[in-house]
Amino acid sequence: MKVIGIVDTTFARYDMASAAMDELEKTGTGFIFQRYTVPGIKDIPVAAKILFEDYNCDIVMAFGMPGPMPVDKISAQIASTGIMEVQLQEKKHIIEVFVHEDEAMDDNELSWLCDRRAREHALNVYYLLFDKEKLTENAGMGLRQGFPDKGPAGSGHKH
Amino acid sequence: MKVIGIVDTTFARYDMASAAMDELEKTGTGFIFQRYTVPGIKDIPVAAKILFEDYNCDIVMAFGMPGPMPVDKISAQIASTGIMEVQLQEKKHIIEVFVHEDEAMDDNELSWLCDRRAREHALNVYYLLFDKEKLTENAGMGLRQGFPDKGPAGSGHKH
Amino acid sequence: MKVIGIVDTTFARYDMASAAMDELEKTGTGFIFQRYTVPGIKDIPVAAKILFEDYNCDIVMAFGMPGPMPVDKISAQIASTGIMEVQLQEKKHIIEVFVHEDEAMDDNELSWLCDRRAREHALNVYYLLFDKEKLTENAGMGLRQGFPDKGPAGSGHKH
Amino acid sequence: MKVIGIVDTTFARYDMASAAMDELEKTGTGFIFQRYTVPGIKDIPVAAKILFEDYNCDIVMAFGMPGPMPVDKISAQIASTGIMEVQLQEKKHIIEVFVHEDEAMDDNELSWLCDRRAREHALNVYYLLFDKEKLTENAGMGLRQGFPDKGPAGSGHKH
Amino acid sequence: MKVIGIVDTTFARYDMASAAMDELEKTGTGFIFQRYTVPGIKDIPVAAKILFEDYNCDIVMAFGMPGPMPVDKISAQIASTGIMEVQLQEKKHIIEVFVHEDEAMDDNELSWLCDRRAREHALNVYYLLFDKEKLTENAGMGLRQGFPDKGPAGSGHKH
Repeated sequence: MKVIGIVDTTFARYDMASAAMDELEKTGTGFIFQRYTVPGIKDIPVAAKILFEDYNCDIVMAFGMPGPMPVDKISAQIASTGIMEVQLQEKKHIIEVFVHEDEAMDDNELSWLCDRRAREHALNVYYLLFDKEKLTENAGMGLRQGFPDKGPAGSGHKH
Repeated sequence: MKVIGIVDTTFARYDMASAAMDELEKTGTGFIFQRYTVPGIKDIPVAAKILFEDYNCDIVMAFGMPGPMPVDKISAQIASTGIMEVQLQEKKHIIEVFVHEDEAMDDNELSWLCDRRAREHALNVYYLLFDKEKLTENAGMGLRQGFPDKGPAGSGHKH
Repeated sequence: MKVIGIVDTTFARYDMASAAMDELEKTGTGFIFQRYTVPGIKDIPVAAKILFEDYNCDIVMAFGMPGPMPVDKISAQIASTGIMEVQLQEKKHIIEVFVHEDEAMDDNELSWLCDRRAREHALNVYYLLFDKEKLTENAGMGLRQGFPDKGPAGSGHKH
Repeated sequence: MKVIGIVDTTFARYDMASAAMDELEKTGTGFIFQRYTVPGIKDIPVAAKILFEDYNCDIVMAFGMPGPMPVDKISAQIASTGIMEVQLQEKKHIIEVFVHEDEAMDDNELSWLCDRRAREHALNVYYLLFDKEKLTENAGMGLRQGFPDKGPAGSGHKH
Repeated sequence: MKVIGIVDTTFARYDMASAAMDELEKTGTGFIFQRYTVPGIKDIPVAAKILFEDYNCDIVMAFGMPGPMPVDKISAQIASTGIMEVQLQEKKHIIEVFVHEDEAMDDNELSWLCDRRAREHALNVYYLLFDKEKLTENAGMGLRQGFPDKGPAGSGHKH
């Protein structure tokens, strides 16, 4: 039984964690969830570390929604740097699912984008846990989470 | 008995630490404070580390007020990076309560903002110590500390 | 027998990994590959660490294609910082082969650039593993991977 | 007997270290100095680490003068990041006394500013070593080193 | 006998390493060189670490030439951050000799600048190894490597 850690925030304006858990439950079995909610994105890394070390997680999904101001962009960079550090300390993946509030034109698009990105990254988590070969099949294919895939740039010759 | 560390600075223009301690005392019991004041925000991380290791703190609140100049923004980024590092070394939360001087229009708004943000983050500290479930109930709800909450972007379906 | 780790992403729009492996196979023998595909560039560092520690790699090539937006540039910086950290933890080289999507004018140039850069860096990997002297011969010669070499600026006197 | 480490550079355009040592000697007793001069600010962190570990320092003052160009600002950021790291490794304070060359209008103001900031931070070092309570008395009071204090923004209620 | 590590790149457009070694040989004796050439500046930190740990170096000189584009500036920052980290891990100095390609107006000035900066930093390496007092004599004197010294800003009173 794999344990999937879920870290999210009260700052974000959409419940991406529930969307991702819903998608994972539709996709397969063999895992349980451990969820840990923190105030903001800079609180995520230590929560992820606690999930790995005290709750035995095999992988963590980290959901956050950085705001539109320069100070928010810096916060996102610091949060991501911490998420990177925890991955290297634990030698386990953290899939960062951040939706920047200014990626969307309005609240409708924002909630659509959050839902899609959370669900598509949930599939990446599933592949990393149970089917890594699936990712290599799609290497260099210009996949995106949320907005449409960009696709490959040209005639790459697959190995 | 939990120990809440308090780090603040002589650089800041409002005594946010006292506001937070006042709010925490109104909210509940079961904790004591350890306070450590440093000159500026870049001195905060090592003070937080000392509070965790030598004063047995379970969580730390870090209060700072970055100035409005580019050099101040860089200082805030370095301070936050250090705060992140200490959290990962100690596997404990540091709730960073920074008010950028240019978030407010004038001194009146600045002191109001400092007071509100300190008090609302004090509640986050209380929940992290004693009632984590309360945070998960508010996941994705667009909460803010100081200025009004932004609220959820749309129809998230809670788990 | 040397083991060359290959990390690439489903986000990139060209299969640079296959180009590099093809070039290495044309160049020499004495090595095998271990490939690990992840969703995006920020997932690369921990994958590289896993390749070093669990798959016995002697060197890793990391292929990524940062997008054109500011948020993508920050992601590239965080990924590179993690790649740096893994190198210092493992005391082994990771050759980072990043092609920024906005380095090329169109998709044709982009795929040409990806292919060239991957192949030229594959040779650097070969030299680092088997013929370090070759690199010292070219010290200060203004070599580039992908676009044409810039050449030396003037009359440096070689040692 | 406390040991105060002093790191400064040949790049800076004012001998801030001597000003700080002069101020400390006027202020009190119970300490000696260990001085280590390096070429530039990016050489400061490892010098500070050597002062802590090989010369038994209890605190370090780090004096630097970043130039006015973007590349200088990046150097200052890297130096400060290293200074942060050393503090966390040693669990001891490093008081960073940087004067950016473009903070002053001309050479006269620059040397005045360097002298004042060095001396006022020397007092902070004294308080951290011998009288921490003095800092808490001034928490949130908007103190500055060099230019005039900004003072508190409004009616903070002290604890 | 001291061992001076030399790391340089095939990316740079001038052989700064040879200039520095030439200058050191003119200056004194009591040292030997270990040279390690890598493709680009982001490959420098791990090479420096290898020189310290496997080739017994007492100090390392790191030569690099960041290009003029924003992506090059970020690479330089990441390289410098890694160089900082290695210094703190090894408790030894790495003297970073970077010449940004856009510091010079043309190729002639660029090669002149590279040669001068390499030679002047070679002297700093000599002083750090054999005559630290020489650096303290020049503390706060506004020394530069390459372009002319700026000199002290005003009447600093030396200790």
